[in-house]
Amino acid sequence: MSKINKPQTLKGFQDLLPAKMVVRNYIKNILIQTFEKYGFQPLETPTLEYASTLMGKYGDEADKLVYSFTDKGDRQIGMRYDLTVPVSKVLSIYQNDINLPFKRYQIQPVWRADKPQKGRYREFTQCDIDTFGTMSPINDAEVIAVIYTVLKKLNFKKFTIAINSRSVLYEILKNSGINENQNSALQSIDKLLKIGKSGVTTEMLSKGYSEDQINNIFNSIDKATPDDYLNQVFEKLELMGVSKDFYKFDPTMVRGLDYYTGPIFETYVEEPKIGSITGGGRYDNLIESLGGPKIAAVGTSLCLDRLTDCVIELNLIPEINKSNTKIMIASFSPQTQDSSLKLITALRESNINSIIYPQDDKLGKQFKYASNLSIPYVAIIGPDEAQKGLISLKNMQTTEQKIVNYEELLSILSNK
Amino acid sequence: MSKINKPQTLKGFQDLLPAKMVVRNYIKNILIQTFEKYGFQPLETPTLEYASTLMGKYGDEADKLVYSFTDKGDRQIGMRYDLTVPVSKVLSIYQNDINLPFKRYQIQPVWRADKPQKGRYREFTQCDIDTFGTMSPINDAEVIAVIYTVLKKLNFKKFTIAINSRSVLYEILKNSGINENQNSALQSIDKLLKIGKSGVTTEMLSKGYSEDQINNIFNSIDKATPDDYLNQVFEKLELMGVSKDFYKFDPTMVRGLDYYTGPIFETYVEEPKIGSITGGGRYDNLIESLGGPKIAAVGTSLCLDRLTDCVIELNLIPEINKSNTKIMIASFSPQTQDSSLKLITALRESNINSIIYPQDDKLGKQFKYASNLSIPYVAIIGPDEAQKGLISLKNMQTTEQKIVNYEELLSILSNK
Repeated sequence: MSKINKPQTLKGFQDLLPAKMVVRNYIKNILIQTFEKYGFQPLETPTLEYASTLMGKYGDEADKLVYSFTDKGDRQIGMRYDLTVPVSKVLSIYQNDINLPFKRYQIQPVWRADKPQKGRYREFTQCDIDTFGTMSPINDAEVIAVIYTVLKKLNFKKFTIAINSRSVLYEILKNSGINENQNSALQSIDKLLKIGKSGVTTEMLSKGYSEDQINNIFNSIDKATPDDYLNQVFEKLELMGVSKDFYKFDPTMVRGLDYYTGPIFETYVEEPKIGSITGGGRYDNLIESLGGPKIAAVGTSLCLDRLTDCVIELNLIPEINKSNTKIMIASFSPQTQDSSLKLITALRESNINSIIYPQDDKLGKQFKYASNLSIPYVAIIGPDEAQKGLISLKNMQTTEQKIVNYEELLSILSNK
Repeated sequence: MSKINKPQTLKGFQDLLPAKMVVRNYIKNILIQTFEKYGFQPLETPTLEYASTLMGKYGDEADKLVYSFTDKGDRQIGMRYDLTVPVSKVLSIYQNDINLPFKRYQIQPVWRADKPQKGRYREFTQCDIDTFGTMSPINDAEVIAVIYTVLKKLNFKKFTIAINSRSVLYEILKNSGINENQNSALQSIDKLLKIGKSGVTTEMLSKGYSEDQINNIFNSIDKATPDDYLNQVFEKLELMGVSKDFYKFDPTMVRGLDYYTGPIFETYVEEPKIGSITGGGRYDNLIESLGGPKIAAVGTSLCLDRLTDCVIELNLIPEINKSNTKIMIASFSPQTQDSSLKLITALRESNINSIIYPQDDKLGKQFKYASNLSIPYVAIIGPDEAQKGLISLKNMQTTEQKIVNYEELLSILSNK
């Protein structure tokens, strides 16, 4: 075929080859195991929805990012943009089938016709957990405990879950005499960590706030304490065994979205400094405003693609998880192929993931193949081994090679 | 909000609520475990591709079923229609990164703007395994062994994998003196099981074949034997421990698609009679004709949605897998909530999936909630139990209730 027709992948989209998929699935499994450990139940919704379900929910800017089109039946439709609008649809349609409290997790791709950048894709997979229909601080604490458990399991060494509450922020503003333009003031406060007191002062002065107001803010922040509800969340966190080294009350943390109604949280990875990787909070009015029933909610969202990029960049994945194939049986000669097939059948029956090299290539080429695929062991059955019922086993990392029997082989592969 | 705005789900699309998702994930996990046991590696490709990548591959009728549109950058794009075109794109773009033989599995939704029917969706999830770049009968046999392993694990009681080869079919036609209109003849032969010899005869006569030719076909079918390559596949199947009760040589099995070049297979579930649930075969020329490199291939495709519908209809899912939450801790009173939280934290640290009922509703209501969610056990900690460090445990199936200590509880939950 001519060069001009060579197929290309669209910008902002990813072909996920096995080496990356293995990391991605390793992370996804940790997410699913943790979500289910905390009793969240799986939900999936369609990729395509009526455009009227998707549009007008988060403002004009968001609407522009929705992939929308007219289908062959002349329906205006669009592609999933987030996982909150779909769950609000589900809560609305299936009110009679859903038992409250409803704890659901949803891991599905979403699409945004955004400018693609490093680490920002047009198709990316969101992982949302939310508890609907309860105002208990237990459920706020559980969301934080899930984030903590996931990041510990993923071997992140140093991270902080900053916890605050919208009511703490409004109390700071009230104490500072700021009763108008509150959101604009909050946006400046949000930058405290980044640009410091002097930066925030300059910005707020330029916005027209008085020096007194600004000083009051800094004083109020210093004196701020968690409200009643937040104190209960902290109590539950302790009972849930979440280490205090990994979360803190942070009265300067704002979260951009103004639909939050109570506790808010955001996770910063500090070593190495990769910034915020997850946010969330309580949003007791949003579902109703999206067209769903009036229902309390608390949750968080993680991005699988960003997590995968971080885990690869920080090399957090254990060596053993880099390949899901434990052993390759090399092809030595047609005469020993039956022995090789019997061996691989026995291994597979013992739940050892294994491949058999199917053709008579040179052993060097076969070893290179196993090495490229990060397969830790290669077994070779020559005529001598076949006769004695033994296996020549090569450890691909140490390059050590030794003769073992089947029980020894199984024990080596099971221990790893 | 007004009734007119009540959100709806598009026809042919599914909201997968937790009860169905649990079955779906149970099946998906069995598929993934089996695919990886046989050394297939995960691959994912984008939902959206250039329309030129998708169109003109399987003819005009297929093109009409592609969801295609113009994106905001004026690109003609379309949604994934199958998993073979995308893998042929991947084999073409990443030729230098991919090691052959390339064994990949891919589990992703595809979209077809088809007429929706019972069990036929516009969005459905295909699960493909294929081995690229080898002509070894080992790899044909492995595909059949995977199907066998998956269906046995899913508790299907009686099924047959019919195995044939395109070369056997062409030999039958040659022996019957049919050298033209071969595909039309094959389409009639394919119906033998359904409409019998008389039905096939009537149809072939109306197509203009002679009585002699038709009788020759029936005689040739009776005398047909596997070719050399197919015999090797059967030998490997035996070495791989695939029970002969579940596959057979069937010279009348055709498979609709004419891109197959060697062995073909199709699986029929016979008890109860739900028909064909998977097909596949060897297609050594297709990847090149789709614009990929010249590369041999053998594989199969399963539909997760159809498998899920079958497993639910036949009630093949073990009771224990109907909920992924093992226990609910009831809310007895605010005074014992700390004990309950300590209990659930310990259980979760022991990898027991569990939920805590977060608010002080009546116990009857809480039991009903657990029962609706198919949770097998409910634990209650009253003041008496809290003081003694004991747990009152209710088995939701037998309704039996007894007092246990933590070690007993753990042992009950771990055994189940």
